[in-house]
Amino acid sequence: MQSEPVYLEDLSVGDVFTSGTHEIDEPQIKAFALAFDPQPFHLDHAAAAGTLFGGLAASGWHTAAVTMRLLVASIPVGNGIIGAGGEISWPKPTRPGDVLRVTTTVLDVVPSRSRPDRGMATMRSETRNQRDDVVQIFTSKIVVFRRQADVPGGIQG
Amino acid sequence: MQSEPVYLEDLSVGDVFTSGTHEIDEPQIKAFALAFDPQPFHLDHAAAAGTLFGGLAASGWHTAAVTMRLLVASIPVGNGIIGAGGEISWPKPTRPGDVLRVTTTVLDVVPSRSRPDRGMATMRSETRNQRDDVVQIFTSKIVVFRRQADVPGGIQG
Repeated sequence: MQSEPVYLEDLSVGDVFTSGTHEIDEPQIKAFALAFDPQPFHLDHAAAAGTLFGGLAASGWHTAAVTMRLLVASIPVGNGIIGAGGEISWPKPTRPGDVLRVTTTVLDVVPSRSRPDRGMATMRSETRNQRDDVVQIFTSKIVVFRRQADVPGGIQG
Repeated sequence: MQSEPVYLEDLSVGDVFTSGTHEIDEPQIKAFALAFDPQPFHLDHAAAAGTLFGGLAASGWHTAAVTMRLLVASIPVGNGIIGAGGEISWPKPTRPGDVLRVTTTVLDVVPSRSRPDRGMATMRSETRNQRDDVVQIFTSKIVVFRRQADVPGGIQG
């Protein structure tokens, strides 16, 4: 984990950020599901057994939210992590007791042409459990600013 | 809002599902951010003012989670809403006091070739606030089963 703030000029294709870990337990899964995704396979073992999940599983949005929590703590973008969007997939479900961690690779860094103070970075974040199964892949575009001191100099994007 | 369960054979390209509404208030925004996206622009008015958001805004994942809540209550897929993934974007931030609703259009329905009991539906869900601004677009692929009674007959996918 890095702690120095990162700006556009610090990011290079191939850079990798590794997060800490977060254990998702059954109470977390059920609380998230009750609030945001109240479907039987996220709420109840017995009901989940007969579904496509074959047992209690976290909402994909819960996996996404925990992934974000891990990203915020491990990618110290100077202006914060502000995503415009991206592509998300959940190859396997997150289960009670899973310990998640996220590995993020910088795929692309593009300075803005119209706004010299910023650019767009494309990141691929893979969320894995303790068995190394990938439970989520999120490829996102995030807005990253240059160091403020550089901007008055009139850098061209 | 429909209440009869929907199966693969009930879905057609162009079908539209309209959700109820959910008001996101400031306590919800801060609670979600504290748990999953603890960045200043999701936690504090003053800190948010000087950021790209120009004021307190909900985490995009909060908008996604509330959207899911609205989808679960408004698209009665017989086997539940199980997404394999999709493309998400947040054209505008969700603000305290925003009243969200979701309109979902069926873009594609493809029976599985290998598994006659199911298929994949592509859905485009647009989440709007009370001013009709689109705050999220999520295009997803979800697994939808046929009616169980049909399966023993040996329907070809």
